[in-house]
Amino acid sequence: MTTTTPSAPETAVACCRPVATGALSASDADQLAASLKALADPARLRLLSIVAQSEGAEACVCDLTEPVGLSQPTVSHHLKVLTSAGFLSRSKRGTWAYYALVPGALDRVSALLATS
Amino acid sequence: MTTTTPSAPETAVACCRPVATGALSASDADQLAASLKALADPARLRLLSIVAQSEGAEACVCDLTEPVGLSQPTVSHHLKVLTSAGFLSRSKRGTWAYYALVPGALDRVSALLATS
Repeated sequence: MTTTTPSAPETAVACCRPVATGALSASDADQLAASLKALADPARLRLLSIVAQSEGAEACVCDLTEPVGLSQPTVSHHLKVLTSAGFLSRSKRGTWAYYALVPGALDRVSALLATS
Repeated sequence: MTTTTPSAPETAVACCRPVATGALSASDADQLAASLKALADPARLRLLSIVAQSEGAEACVCDLTEPVGLSQPTVSHHLKVLTSAGFLSRSKRGTWAYYALVPGALDRVSALLATS
């Protein structure tokens, strides 16, 4: 089994102060914007929600294509964006790749947008 | 004084269940993705953070151009995107337009991304 962990520069916002607590620096804004851009797609949000509700917050790529009604290459592209951005991790087991929610990644973005 | 309130279809996600609590419908995913897209820009995040830390969470457009280092038309474009998406409201008072955080708008998006 191989597990792909996101490379450091793209890991879902380890940086940053919350948006509403003070002027964001240019570099904090760049990092948070990149994370939000990875999330700002209907297909990617649906894929995340399907993975999140799967047993163990992990799903086989073989179960992700049909529910979103997109081609396998398109789904793979979206999964790659979410993995690169640090929201999903990827494990290869036998024939299939499995995608799991990275614990805390969505919550970190959520916390940066909360105003209180 | 005139106040621009966001038009209904673009108001920051009044819809939607949280991403991690069940499979999102296509229409919920579309609405949340549109809100995230409005936020997914470094200049817009910085503008929001400057407005948020201003007195009364409101700022004159005349005070928003210099801190982000962009031209006035570019700043106006970004403010329009944030207003259309329901994150800012706009009031005209005398010569200047003032932008205020729409209470609860960022928190609604934050809540939809939180996993617990």
